[in-house]
Amino acid sequence: MAEPVEVGDPDDPRLHDYTALTDVELRRRREPAEGLFIAEGQKVVRRALRAGYGMRSMLLTAKWVDALRDVIEEVPAPVYVVSDELAERVTGYHVHRGALAAMQRKVLPDAADVLAGARRVVVMEAVNDHTNIGAIFRSAAALGMDAVLLSPDCADPLYRRSVKVSMGAVFSVPYARLDAWPRDLYGTVKEAGFRLLALTPAAEATALPDLAAHELPRLALLLGAEGPGLSHKALAAADTLVRIPMSHDIDSLNVGAAAAVAFYAVAAAS
Amino acid sequence: MAEPVEVGDPDDPRLHDYTALTDVELRRRREPAEGLFIAEGQKVVRRALRAGYGMRSMLLTAKWVDALRDVIEEVPAPVYVVSDELAERVTGYHVHRGALAAMQRKVLPDAADVLAGARRVVVMEAVNDHTNIGAIFRSAAALGMDAVLLSPDCADPLYRRSVKVSMGAVFSVPYARLDAWPRDLYGTVKEAGFRLLALTPAAEATALPDLAAHELPRLALLLGAEGPGLSHKALAAADTLVRIPMSHDIDSLNVGAAAAVAFYAVAAAS
Repeated sequence: MAEPVEVGDPDDPRLHDYTALTDVELRRRREPAEGLFIAEGQKVVRRALRAGYGMRSMLLTAKWVDALRDVIEEVPAPVYVVSDELAERVTGYHVHRGALAAMQRKVLPDAADVLAGARRVVVMEAVNDHTNIGAIFRSAAALGMDAVLLSPDCADPLYRRSVKVSMGAVFSVPYARLDAWPRDLYGTVKEAGFRLLALTPAAEATALPDLAAHELPRLALLLGAEGPGLSHKALAAADTLVRIPMSHDIDSLNVGAAAAVAFYAVAAAS
Repeated sequence: MAEPVEVGDPDDPRLHDYTALTDVELRRRREPAEGLFIAEGQKVVRRALRAGYGMRSMLLTAKWVDALRDVIEEVPAPVYVVSDELAERVTGYHVHRGALAAMQRKVLPDAADVLAGARRVVVMEAVNDHTNIGAIFRSAAALGMDAVLLSPDCADPLYRRSVKVSMGAVFSVPYARLDAWPRDLYGTVKEAGFRLLALTPAAEATALPDLAAHELPRLALLLGAEGPGLSHKALAAADTLVRIPMSHDIDSLNVGAAAAVAFYAVAAAS
């Protein structure tokens, strides 16, 4: 353990990991480059630790020191205690959860390694909204998907907002990035014996309830972003197009809702 | 039609319907009391009109006048054209969709009338988050639920954010409020022949895939708020408790995701 240290200077270099947290563009570049991510709130901090992420430091307002005493005693990382005002000045927002931790990223596994132990995986293409990424991980964890693969242009699952919306599910579901898109759909995913299902609103697609269970020994479910949906090249790689039956002349669900329904349906069919 | 009128004074009483749109507490009181709601963006404005809501007026920035020319010609309501700065000053935010309409509420139907033509209905208890209300309406419309009933403490489906998140589905799915809670679950919903299913994470509940289709000639699916879930008295009214099977030690889905899965599952079972 390290004794908590009071810090009063917003320019103290020890607080560097926590500066300008509301500047999405800056943080999006800095965090992967510097090998860190931010866990916010004691529940998420604990989940990140349990998932084996190393802690670089914690930034706490005074009233959170007691609540996190066990973590402070267990972990060797330095703990900086600051006033509410200083926390706001450093981070750029009112930190009402009162506890932030700078955590060390791990090297992402290869897609092939993630696929090795999996039966049902999610593959996202160009999902670049942090809220949607987080929501999809949360549903994937709850509804029995074993792993997630991301196209090169998907947003970062460890960005603060993704982590928060996922309720920490980004720590418990293994994930990897595909580097060559869409080539890795062929060379990595299908090569590993996965049947590639693409979720689309297209009328000619198979309705999810009509999927035959025996078709799905190992399946990868391909999801596109809200709005544009899947690209032509991703659709072309699919073995089967699947759709959620819809009514009331509504042509689409929110991507988070659509993902949850699809995860439930493929779990029921396999 | 009415010729568009340029307005330059933020205190012009004709703009009263659009003042202080970012003050949620104020608007939450004012809008039902004054019989109005706000539709934002040309798509939502058109959907509200198509659903038969009367228009009180429109507030447009200049570049939207042409895009909405057909609406302006069709509807007798006055159209106020303002600068971006004035729109922001009146409403309190940067109106990047550029088109707002003040629409006239309709008298809500009785729950009994809404139930008369329905086979599958959603009943929400204390869902007071406008984003969640909107998301649930959108999924309900897409996944074949015929109607929505709201407990007295649910948020307003016609609040601007609910309307927007629902993509206008609040206009297409009939809904009503239950006045006596939970008494109307017995006297109105079950009395009309609906089997009342309560969605809960409780282990003793029936897993959704195990619902037998013949059980569900007419069904009402009861949903609680994110966090607290359903009250004891609502659970006590249910004929059957149902749960979404979950894994990875995750004990809950986001309420929007859970609702979508449940709508899909009951549609498949009935």
